[in-house]
Amino acid sequence: MTKKFVLAAARVATMDGSSEPYGMIAKGAAAIENGQITWVGAQDALPDRFRDWPREDLGGRLITPGLIDAHTHVVFGGNRAVEFEMRLNGASYEEIARAGGGILSTVNATRTAGEEELLADALPRVDALLAEGVSCIEVKSGYGLDRDTELRMLRAARRIETERPVRVKTTFLGAHAVPPEFKGKADAYIDEVCIPTLRVAHEQGLVDAVDGFCEGIAFDPAQIARVFDAAQELGLPVKLHAEQLSNLGGTKLAASYGALSADHIEYLDEDGVRAMSEAGSVAVLLPGAFYTLHETQIPPVDLLRSHNVPMALATDCNPGSSPLTSLLLTMNMACTLFRLTPLEALAGVTCNAARALGLDDTGTIAAGKRADLAIWNVEHPAELSYRIGFNPLCKRIFGGTE
Amino acid sequence: MTKKFVLAAARVATMDGSSEPYGMIAKGAAAIENGQITWVGAQDALPDRFRDWPREDLGGRLITPGLIDAHTHVVFGGNRAVEFEMRLNGASYEEIARAGGGILSTVNATRTAGEEELLADALPRVDALLAEGVSCIEVKSGYGLDRDTELRMLRAARRIETERPVRVKTTFLGAHAVPPEFKGKADAYIDEVCIPTLRVAHEQGLVDAVDGFCEGIAFDPAQIARVFDAAQELGLPVKLHAEQLSNLGGTKLAASYGALSADHIEYLDEDGVRAMSEAGSVAVLLPGAFYTLHETQIPPVDLLRSHNVPMALATDCNPGSSPLTSLLLTMNMACTLFRLTPLEALAGVTCNAARALGLDDTGTIAAGKRADLAIWNVEHPAELSYRIGFNPLCKRIFGGTE
Ligand SMILES: [Zn+2]
Ligand SMILES: [Zn+2]
Repeated sequence: MTKKFVLAAARVATMDGSSEPYGMIAKGAAAIENGQITWVGAQDALPDRFRDWPREDLGGRLITPGLIDAHTHVVFGGNRAVEFEMRLNGASYEEIARAGGGILSTVNATRTAGEEELLADALPRVDALLAEGVSCIEVKSGYGLDRDTELRMLRAARRIETERPVRVKTTFLGAHAVPPEFKGKADAYIDEVCIPTLRVAHEQGLVDAVDGFCEGIAFDPAQIARVFDAAQELGLPVKLHAEQLSNLGGTKLAASYGALSADHIEYLDEDGVRAMSEAGSVAVLLPGAFYTLHETQIPPVDLLRSHNVPMALATDCNPGSSPLTSLLLTMNMACTLFRLTPLEALAGVTCNAARALGLDDTGTIAAGKRADLAIWNVEHPAELSYRIGFNPLCKRIFGGTE
Repeated sequence: MTKKFVLAAARVATMDGSSEPYGMIAKGAAAIENGQITWVGAQDALPDRFRDWPREDLGGRLITPGLIDAHTHVVFGGNRAVEFEMRLNGASYEEIARAGGGILSTVNATRTAGEEELLADALPRVDALLAEGVSCIEVKSGYGLDRDTELRMLRAARRIETERPVRVKTTFLGAHAVPPEFKGKADAYIDEVCIPTLRVAHEQGLVDAVDGFCEGIAFDPAQIARVFDAAQELGLPVKLHAEQLSNLGGTKLAASYGALSADHIEYLDEDGVRAMSEAGSVAVLLPGAFYTLHETQIPPVDLLRSHNVPMALATDCNPGSSPLTSLLLTMNMACTLFRLTPLEALAGVTCNAARALGLDDTGTIAAGKRADLAIWNVEHPAELSYRIGFNPLCKRIFGGTE
């Protein structure tokens, strides 16, 4: 495709916040130049200066912003299929742990994997996402839990961008779990490994944001606060895995640091929702983990709505609690399990996901934004959430290029 | 690929019922000739007569029988995405019905669609299934509910076989719902439309089996029995949508006709399970509908196990309660929602699915069976159920042909 062109005869879900649901332009067109959207509007109103540009007629197909997966752990070693099978065959958690299962099995597999292997293992997962119109993914570290492996994970994550036409935002998640060599010494791990590694990773340009897991089985708010202090000092934005299994107040803590997002938040209360609203944090909902873990506590969707907290959706792609690589299925799960509307689901993987990553140049279709687009063989955007396990992508445009 | 060849260096999940889980041959080979499996076993034991055949080295990849989707409604008109959205936007069932929603909206869309359109609409759904290694699908009528449309649906279903490399088994489901023109006159519909249409469809060679929906919102056992009597007279096997929302005794009725399968069966009791066991009927579990309808009553999996009733799994692909076109996701849902083991899940879409369709030439990898195979980029068969929204298919072999 040439460097400048017009997409015509399209239904355009701009997601631009206009009063029309989906910001929909029924008979729309968009002009693209040098990887940017130059103009979008009703085809009848296409300005003269675009009329002789190469034009592609989309035959009424739907255009949406390229999808954004705002919370993934796609870089990791090994997989946990055997553990999945053991559990369904009736093994207890103790037996699984004794057989080397659980998150520490992924830590072991990740520590023994080289950078090339981590990258090679991640790419099929990334490809599955891209095949569904994804143009930007967040990728976390957090299965190394030692300096070298955390850095290796982040380097592998960065390299996804050079191997595939996709934008990657990296997140340092050293505070994901306490590694076995620090068992019972979480504070020492935070101070001696996690924070120093963050500083090095930042120095090497490997970190776009800083995350933690605030939960009984991971780190408490005081430990997370030390990590966030270090992030703040380095000028890095923060986000948090919070209130997934209980309410420890992690979300309020994150909000007090102006967090980009609080993620999971099944157990969040109104106080916490209010804190997010005041901080402008995005709620990143992760229905894949909810589904896999048989959770029953649904995130406080009505409170998030009434306090105008934007909701994003993400796969949480990881080998344990959410081995999920479909953002379309994530949308369906959010509608089916959390009763989000199809409009909220699409906003969750476009405009609100961009906001959860601190990006203002993508996530909507508007003049001046990046030309990251998904073109679908569907008429109505609700079809993207309605179907289960079906990919209606016609094609993806990334930075103005097919 | 030539007409005769050997697949080598493979992990072969034969699903042949041997004592090894998955009937696994760790370093296996298979010889294929004229669309049939001629030999399968340990590669070391490959007989001399196959040693000079063209050989494909699979590098340790997993081979399974081609997957079988034993319960689908992939032929229908329209889709129900707008209704899905209305419901999530808070519309009541009454409002949706007034807006023309529900199963009758699909009946209307199917009645107005021509045979070509029905076929064209079905093919993308079929393609999604084939892309995941499916080699055989069952397709039901039941959205016409008048003679001409039921016949048209069955003709469209048969034609899938000529348009795609897949085997189709057709099922007459005239007793799916009471059409609007017979509202309150279900008996008259059964006697005046359903049974006469079955006879014509059979005469035209369009029917491989006969199905019904036995439920408060559909037909009672006495009405289903009249349809089954007609099927029996025509020499056609029966199966039944039964005990999905309540226990009306449909499964026992179906068993008394030697049914191939009873499908859904969330509310089945031990008496019904015993009847299935004695009749040799297969339990076809449909987790996609369970998931979509937010059901909470899980099928009696332990009873089915203890009474040795084979369990099959299917997508139930339909526009209302299960717009699902992924058999791999169905396997994951069966493990996650119904606690099936990965072995049971794979049996559910191979050997037991074949049995649910009355087929004895497919569903396992053994000498004399059709060479319908799926080759996967995975090591362990549990990976097929463990991942969510990921397709690790390397390639499909259908009737000995790639
Ligand atoms: Zn996560
Ligand atoms: Zn059905």
